Amino acid sequence: MFVTPTLTVNLSAIIANWKLLASKFSGQETAAVVKADAYGLGMIPVSHALAKAGCNTFFVATLEEAIALRAALPDVRILVFHGVQAGEEFAFATHKIIPVLNSREQLARWKPIAKDHVHAVSALHIDTAMGRLGLQPEDFETLDKQLLTDCRVSLLMSHFACAPDRHHPLNAEQLEKMKRIVAQAPGIPVSLCNSGGVFLPKEYHFHLARVGCSLYGIAPQDDTLNPMHQVAHWQAPVLQIRIAEHEQSVGYGATRIVPKGTKILTVASGYADGYHRILTNKSAAYLGEHKMPLLGRVTMDMLCFDGTEVSESLLKEGAMVSLLANREGITVDALADHAQTIGYEILTSIGPRVKRIYVENPV
Amino acid sequence: MFVTPTLTVNLSAIIANWKLLASKFSGQETAAVVKADAYGLGMIPVSHALAKAGCNTFFVATLEEAIALRAALPDVRILVFHGVQAGEEFAFATHKIIPVLNSREQLARWKPIAKDHVHAVSALHIDTAMGRLGLQPEDFETLDKQLLTDCRVSLLMSHFACAPDRHHPLNAEQLEKMKRIVAQAPGIPVSLCNSGGVFLPKEYHFHLARVGCSLYGIAPQDDTLNPMHQVAHWQAPVLQIRIAEHEQSVGYGATRIVPKGTKILTVASGYADGYHRILTNKSAAYLGEHKMPLLGRVTMDMLCFDGTEVSESLLKEGAMVSLLANREGITVDALADHAQTIGYEILTSIGPRVKRIYVENPV
Repeated sequence: MFVTPTLTVNLSAIIANWKLLASKFSGQETAAVVKADAYGLGMIPVSHALAKAGCNTFFVATLEEAIALRAALPDVRILVFHGVQAGEEFAFATHKIIPVLNSREQLARWKPIAKDHVHAVSALHIDTAMGRLGLQPEDFETLDKQLLTDCRVSLLMSHFACAPDRHHPLNAEQLEKMKRIVAQAPGIPVSLCNSGGVFLPKEYHFHLARVGCSLYGIAPQDDTLNPMHQVAHWQAPVLQIRIAEHEQSVGYGATRIVPKGTKILTVASGYADGYHRILTNKSAAYLGEHKMPLLGRVTMDMLCFDGTEVSESLLKEGAMVSLLANREGITVDALADHAQTIGYEILTSIGPRVKRIYVENPV
Repeated sequence: MFVTPTLTVNLSAIIANWKLLASKFSGQETAAVVKADAYGLGMIPVSHALAKAGCNTFFVATLEEAIALRAALPDVRILVFHGVQAGEEFAFATHKIIPVLNSREQLARWKPIAKDHVHAVSALHIDTAMGRLGLQPEDFETLDKQLLTDCRVSLLMSHFACAPDRHHPLNAEQLEKMKRIVAQAPGIPVSLCNSGGVFLPKEYHFHLARVGCSLYGIAPQDDTLNPMHQVAHWQAPVLQIRIAEHEQSVGYGATRIVPKGTKILTVASGYADGYHRILTNKSAAYLGEHKMPLLGRVTMDMLCFDGTEVSESLLKEGAMVSLLANREGITVDALADHAQTIGYEILTSIGPRVKRIYVENPV
């Protein structure tokens, strides 16, 4: 058995989050976004659990992710945000994977595939504000609509730029643009909402929601209490406990001086494991009920914490310290604030040396 | 074939860097640090290349990394910085892996293993400034030195806190501490130097150097021109090219407005691939000779660049854009500056969707 950091993922919390989002969504179906290895938590176990709970549609970013998911779940709908690139057409058809077509080029690429493969369908992405992927509305207006039939477009989608801010004027602008698109393509189901969108008024909802971040415990809206269950718990073992024999520096650059008698706990995670280096001297960890400030710089494979106030009985090599947990100051959103980023990047950064452990603890 | 981002690793550059470091080092052996998957570049191919070039000693952080390396290289010396944790003793012995013992507890743990296994040796880490792992000098002084024999300690090591700054007074302090340690344990080889240490005067060198960052192209010293060869080239395919039909926002939060006619290139990498989100609106990429500013926020799976000035002939879906390369503004150290971090974290962050490609291009 290796002594190793762990990321415990509560699948029951993910299911509960999916059900909560589905209960808020007035449309017909709540799909799961499991790209980037389910935001770092593990695409296959997370998707298995969601499928078992009744989720039938999954979104990933790339064809490679889609093929890995197809091997695990033969019967669900799988859509690929990046669309179909030149050379990927037959892999999409063979594995019954649905490309989100983003351009006239991709529509042209898919048309012969749809003709030759009776099951081959597609989605079409209209860009209403992101400037990233998708047809521009002006481009959609001049598009020969026969292509929608020829490519068997079975979903029209767009993506919010500012959904977590319910008061942002861009939300209403995007809705108006989408309404004009939908009027030109009657009968095709529509998807506009991400996690934030589900909490906007019903007129924003349409048929299918694609929820990602909030499945994994991230707040869907900026200005309200986070209603989601926390999902992930990152722990790392204590490698060594030392009591400083004299006043001394800790870490690279000797940026931190601690007094004689300080109990320094060195634990086995670092920025190579996704504990952002910018958290240097800013974050904390828990051992039992004790909150321990980070000492000195985050290093590649190790972190040092001040365990001076921790009960003697807890101070053992191998004890597991909580780095990311549902506790004050180290939730996914709190760590993100300290690291000048968003919770998504905290989760997707967690590296492969951190062993994923899956549990089903009732929430 | 997947259309996917790539990280091209030039093994010849790593070998050339190892030889350059070995030529600067006055001791007997220059060992390679290949922890954290060789700083994200791929532990197995990198170690294979180094072993073929004559490198015989490798350092990793964890037992798990060591066992994976042992499977690839049956005959080299492999040392584990994290030392031997309770329960790991026999795996070390079975795989002939050398723990870097960091505490009295670990010495006690290793003693019976050394007794029972004739090949079992160890290293001993003395902490002279980091406050992280290793015996404190005061603790070493009172240690029963028979333990060094009983544990077959075959290397005494310590780690610089400030080696890239050749003028830092801590370097000399650490040296003096190490000299006092060495005087108490005559005949045991000594390792003090990392990449930065190799560029300090010879009195700092001792017997064995452990070089990591500079193998991979990172500058070993703060105040001199970087003498190392660049090793890594990260490219990502263009997913879509759009010409803005009107003035519009780009990306989440609508933080960036571009004028009508802007050519927006969306490419397939994001913070889930290790392109730090803090690079938002700060970095750039190259297509051919053209430097393209980043537009808007870094997203999980995609980046947008301003390709307005790029030659028409290069603007194709699938074209490969350079995100990290040996070019002005996007070297590993330049990206690190923009991301408020160090080159090490830029490399270790690069994620699994970025396919590693190994080449041997003469430098």
